[in-house]
Amino acid sequence: MKIGLIIIGDELLAGSTQDCNMLYLGEKMRSLGLTLSHCQVIHDQQENIKKAFEESLQNFDLTICSGGLGPTIDDRTKQALAHFLDVELVENEEAKKLVTDHYAKRDLTWNPELNNYHMIPAGIQAYQNPKGLAPGLYLKTANNKKLLCAPGVPREFQSMVDQFLSEELSAIIKKERAYFTIRTTGIPEEQIFNHRCPNLWSKLSEFGDVSSYPRYTGIDIVISNLKIKTNEFIKHLEKLTELDPIRDHIWHLGNGPIEKIIIEFALKNGITLSTAESCTGGLIAHLLTEISGSSGAFWGTVVSYDNSVKENILHVSKDDLKTHGAVSSEVARQMATGVRSATKTTYGLSTTGVAGPLGGSKEKPVGTVGIGIHGPSGVSSKIYHIPPLFDRDEMKKRFATRALISLYRQMKKDCSQ
Amino acid sequence: MKIGLIIIGDELLAGSTQDCNMLYLGEKMRSLGLTLSHCQVIHDQQENIKKAFEESLQNFDLTICSGGLGPTIDDRTKQALAHFLDVELVENEEAKKLVTDHYAKRDLTWNPELNNYHMIPAGIQAYQNPKGLAPGLYLKTANNKKLLCAPGVPREFQSMVDQFLSEELSAIIKKERAYFTIRTTGIPEEQIFNHRCPNLWSKLSEFGDVSSYPRYTGIDIVISNLKIKTNEFIKHLEKLTELDPIRDHIWHLGNGPIEKIIIEFALKNGITLSTAESCTGGLIAHLLTEISGSSGAFWGTVVSYDNSVKENILHVSKDDLKTHGAVSSEVARQMATGVRSATKTTYGLSTTGVAGPLGGSKEKPVGTVGIGIHGPSGVSSKIYHIPPLFDRDEMKKRFATRALISLYRQMKKDCSQ
Repeated sequence: MKIGLIIIGDELLAGSTQDCNMLYLGEKMRSLGLTLSHCQVIHDQQENIKKAFEESLQNFDLTICSGGLGPTIDDRTKQALAHFLDVELVENEEAKKLVTDHYAKRDLTWNPELNNYHMIPAGIQAYQNPKGLAPGLYLKTANNKKLLCAPGVPREFQSMVDQFLSEELSAIIKKERAYFTIRTTGIPEEQIFNHRCPNLWSKLSEFGDVSSYPRYTGIDIVISNLKIKTNEFIKHLEKLTELDPIRDHIWHLGNGPIEKIIIEFALKNGITLSTAESCTGGLIAHLLTEISGSSGAFWGTVVSYDNSVKENILHVSKDDLKTHGAVSSEVARQMATGVRSATKTTYGLSTTGVAGPLGGSKEKPVGTVGIGIHGPSGVSSKIYHIPPLFDRDEMKKRFATRALISLYRQMKKDCSQ
Repeated sequence: MKIGLIIIGDELLAGSTQDCNMLYLGEKMRSLGLTLSHCQVIHDQQENIKKAFEESLQNFDLTICSGGLGPTIDDRTKQALAHFLDVELVENEEAKKLVTDHYAKRDLTWNPELNNYHMIPAGIQAYQNPKGLAPGLYLKTANNKKLLCAPGVPREFQSMVDQFLSEELSAIIKKERAYFTIRTTGIPEEQIFNHRCPNLWSKLSEFGDVSSYPRYTGIDIVISNLKIKTNEFIKHLEKLTELDPIRDHIWHLGNGPIEKIIIEFALKNGITLSTAESCTGGLIAHLLTEISGSSGAFWGTVVSYDNSVKENILHVSKDDLKTHGAVSSEVARQMATGVRSATKTTYGLSTTGVAGPLGGSKEKPVGTVGIGIHGPSGVSSKIYHIPPLFDRDEMKKRFATRALISLYRQMKKDCSQ
């Protein structure tokens, strides 16, 4: 089954809105053993949209379209579809019913004049929008090509796609396909595949489709469409000699973001966590609290952006701040100890560094970060140097993931003893 | 000038990597008065890429291509370009020089066998990669069509595009075009344009191109390609009767994210800030510290995810936590006071709520959030109810922006007195 995605919206091509519907649809299709073949992003112009419908219905079995269903005059998907089918917009009873229900669910009264949500191209099916007001549009052609027009708002797009897949495609959907990730850190892609482990790619290909992705944490090696069960695959990996030259660089065998891996590990082992963040500015706390259920393991954070906060709340020594500077192994250590004792958690994790672009010095250039960990086996800290190639945003993310990998390794070490 | 973007990468269509190069290129082009006409995302297959090159060079004056230049076997852009041009990959002296320099800058030694970075299609120009190792590829055809192939890694793509624009396109680039944003909150799109201010869109269109975007903060009305100077436009806006019915919903006249607006306002007015975050879990601190120079105004945060942290560090009353619950106006107020006094800042801002999906109750459903502000004019707090339509991630963002808008309005009020 060939699947195409059309994303409509001037705001996406003008760089004022980040698309995330391609990411969602692609991941969804992959998890169902299907492949998104192509995506195009086009302007809100009627002729443009019509042409994209034409091409996509020729080339793909299923076309999913995102955007242009809202109430303002730059929303033109309905008109373009009517134009493409050479029909008029007409009052649709099903659409009326859906919209009335949508408004009622939010304790609002629908006023048709404000949005014309009930007017859709003749012969088109109105499609339920589980999380929004504007109904979707569904067309099934005589030669069994399918077109679903969904709103561009991500939660509406996603919920409509989910419903469509379970209602219309359940028959052809294969079972969920497993994929598995080997997580490395501190070693470049070319060193792994072209130097230390020249046979790794072909060896892993025996088990599924291999890809390699640079992440903030390091290189992720992904094996998708796994031919054997995940458990068996892990056993193979543990014995795989082709992996031996990079074993020290592997921080985890398995999927999911580092923050999820940590929260699950902590919950499973009765561990509680806190962070003291300077250069990461609350990002680690934000990442950990993105995980539903994190409140069982994550207790709190002190963002000590100003030195006075390091002194007053974390009890970092004023003298050490003066002697060694805020970005130092000593201060990282005291911050970890300070937040652990203030929050009474199993582990305290700290970061203090220079995220840039301002604030670097010859001795402590942008990219320098001190990471401290205080846990059941005591306190330790280390200075890392991230190459000063990244902007502030990426630097914060690299500091945060560097700290989380260190914490995860320490927790595993402590728990295995 | 018609500009097309081709994004190459299985990982993007498989939903395992979020593209952000379209966002960057689109915004860049807009700021230069140019328009990105079209974007397509395709798989790493040689025939696929070749076809995209063919079509794009027919339809567009400039094609920018992202991805597929790395060292692994799924990087196929060079091969596809050679195939399209019907030439071989050959050793290129300029590429050799660029790569040797790139490695030297990172204190690394280049080993050609590991990546073949020096082999590029015959007749193609190697293009400097200011922030990475693999050189780009640049083709200018006989009929003056241009094709730039850049790496997919965002910082490399962005820096190469910037350099390309200044080197190759400076002659045709118009002056930077201004755009201006009217920021509203708490009122839906259809209420603004189709009910309260039916003539607003056409009135604003006299000044430039109008668009309307739903954001976490509310509806942003953007006027781009402004025909008059920004200062003059603001004067017009202040007198514009068509805006009067929604003036109470306008929280700012101007561009930029709320966190940047707040940091700039605080720096200008000698204000210092701290936050006490429960449900937002450090997100507000993370947003504020994304702004370079924020350390001058933002001093620190206590993320009090666990009640013990609310008591121990923020000195919230144990009795009030018991009587009113953590998600309450009383606790929000005490958290704001607690963090303000612990950090000694001008303002303390607090959030305590239910981000979901777990933790809601009949009395305090998912989406309930208490926001507290303690500043020079005293302490206040309020409970808000965000509709329970959003997932955890979006709920946290809506809580955070709701709190930041409240803080910004309070700061403006205090400073105008």
